[in-house]
Amino acid sequence: MSKEQQLQLDAILRQGGLDTNADVPTLRAAFSELMAQVPVAPDIQQSPVEIGGVAGVEVAIHGNDSENVILYFHGGVYVIGYAAATVPLVGDLVRRTGTKAITLEYRLAPEHPYPAAVDDARAAYVGLLAQGIAPGQIALAGESAGAGLAVALLLALREAGVPLPSCAYLMSPYADLTLSGETLAAKREVDPLLTPEGLRARVPDYVGGGDASDPYISPIFGDLRELPPLLIQVGSHEVLLSDALRLAGRAAISDVPVTLDVTPGVPHVFQAYAALLDEAGTALDRASEFVKAQLAHSPSHAQIA
Amino acid sequence: MSKEQQLQLDAILRQGGLDTNADVPTLRAAFSELMAQVPVAPDIQQSPVEIGGVAGVEVAIHGNDSENVILYFHGGVYVIGYAAATVPLVGDLVRRTGTKAITLEYRLAPEHPYPAAVDDARAAYVGLLAQGIAPGQIALAGESAGAGLAVALLLALREAGVPLPSCAYLMSPYADLTLSGETLAAKREVDPLLTPEGLRARVPDYVGGGDASDPYISPIFGDLRELPPLLIQVGSHEVLLSDALRLAGRAAISDVPVTLDVTPGVPHVFQAYAALLDEAGTALDRASEFVKAQLAHSPSHAQIA
Repeated sequence: MSKEQQLQLDAILRQGGLDTNADVPTLRAAFSELMAQVPVAPDIQQSPVEIGGVAGVEVAIHGNDSENVILYFHGGVYVIGYAAATVPLVGDLVRRTGTKAITLEYRLAPEHPYPAAVDDARAAYVGLLAQGIAPGQIALAGESAGAGLAVALLLALREAGVPLPSCAYLMSPYADLTLSGETLAAKREVDPLLTPEGLRARVPDYVGGGDASDPYISPIFGDLRELPPLLIQVGSHEVLLSDALRLAGRAAISDVPVTLDVTPGVPHVFQAYAALLDEAGTALDRASEFVKAQLAHSPSHAQIA
Repeated sequence: MSKEQQLQLDAILRQGGLDTNADVPTLRAAFSELMAQVPVAPDIQQSPVEIGGVAGVEVAIHGNDSENVILYFHGGVYVIGYAAATVPLVGDLVRRTGTKAITLEYRLAPEHPYPAAVDDARAAYVGLLAQGIAPGQIALAGESAGAGLAVALLLALREAGVPLPSCAYLMSPYADLTLSGETLAAKREVDPLLTPEGLRARVPDYVGGGDASDPYISPIFGDLRELPPLLIQVGSHEVLLSDALRLAGRAAISDVPVTLDVTPGVPHVFQAYAALLDEAGTALDRASEFVKAQLAHSPSHAQIA
């Protein structure tokens, strides 16, 4: 079944594929139209919130553990995407973990290039702490650029001496905006969603006057020491596979507890297609076990509880 | 507690450390003396077996699932080590998985250079099939050189058209006998067991007249397509960390289901020290979940059951 599911999903994505080489308004409109078609499960409650001065959407289901929170960052090469678009996927995570989530409306490029996204992510995290939530009660999660942003946030927090969250769950991280990964070429034929050219076209929007190899933009070039446990999930049909591999390698060498979890034959952020693809659900199951274990084991959490 | 345990283990290993730069008889004697001190838990039963013409030790506990088997390969740079020395660690795996194991007495270099070890591993695997055990009922496992050997065996089986086992559990794989990994230098100060010089001294013993970059000797250089699910566990205090990272990367790019599981601050084959180190037991717990899931899910197994 799974091979059939993989082929079916591949065909759907190739047909409806977003060309990030298009101009920004066209791209955003196409993305919104696509995402508006994805239904939100009836058990999922969503409500607008503001946290640390940044807008977001709180995602919960009845019976959530109210102590912990997942702070979630959407994808979209720092240029497209929006919080509400992630509610179906975040809802799948909320249901499995029993933990509510806030998916953040961080500012986008080119209107707001780096460091706007990192600043917003940090403001939201610090805002959670200001509400009395302990660092160990917070898990970061993100997809694509949002996963890169989660790691950039960890680096920024560490540098600023702010206590770090319990863990980060990173789906198909976009973590090298210099686009130096070997799979950009090696996987271009099998990736139904992203192309090296499409990615390259959007890099200047976010990098602005900065340097694409800045670790806060491309965390694979960062010193990752002292980061909390990371779970990195990636599909093998991705031009960004190398980003995940190199981020895991960099974390390992920096003495960070890291798990790299590779699912073959599936595309970028395949977890978003749980309705179509068995591998999406099983990957979310594994991720939820990770998040729950980290939230439960966190020393900061234990002090509070 | 764990940090203290890590420091204690580090000190023990540095004191009793094996210098693989010594001559082979001295090295083997020192290793035997060291391993003879490790107690075998009283619930573990061991008995000599011969499988496909190769000697081994069967490790079991009362109540084992008799259908499945773990075929295990010891470490020791293809020059030292022996099956009985692995019984404490293999017993920990047998207890957790409920699956009996055979730890193999494959021939060692320099008396028997490559391909003797691969030939023996293949003979044993084919011997299991000849007993009527389905490929999906077999899990490979190995430590250090034995983990490299497990991958070499998978490549050899695939090339020969022999049905592959359900999975392989690889602890700190020694998978690049060209010694080209960046962590050989980067981790030499923190690795309490192995040195680049010690490894280099023993490479010619196994490689013999062959080429160290041959994929059957150094599987990171191999085409890993079609391999079954791999779990790679490694510590961050290892000069061989890069072998694990590159093997995982190669597997991912080759569309192999692979999980890389990095534990920071612990040494080469840290799973062997479950009595001293909490991380060893938790890593074995994760590995056992992996092995059990793969044995249960294997299509070949389902056909038989």
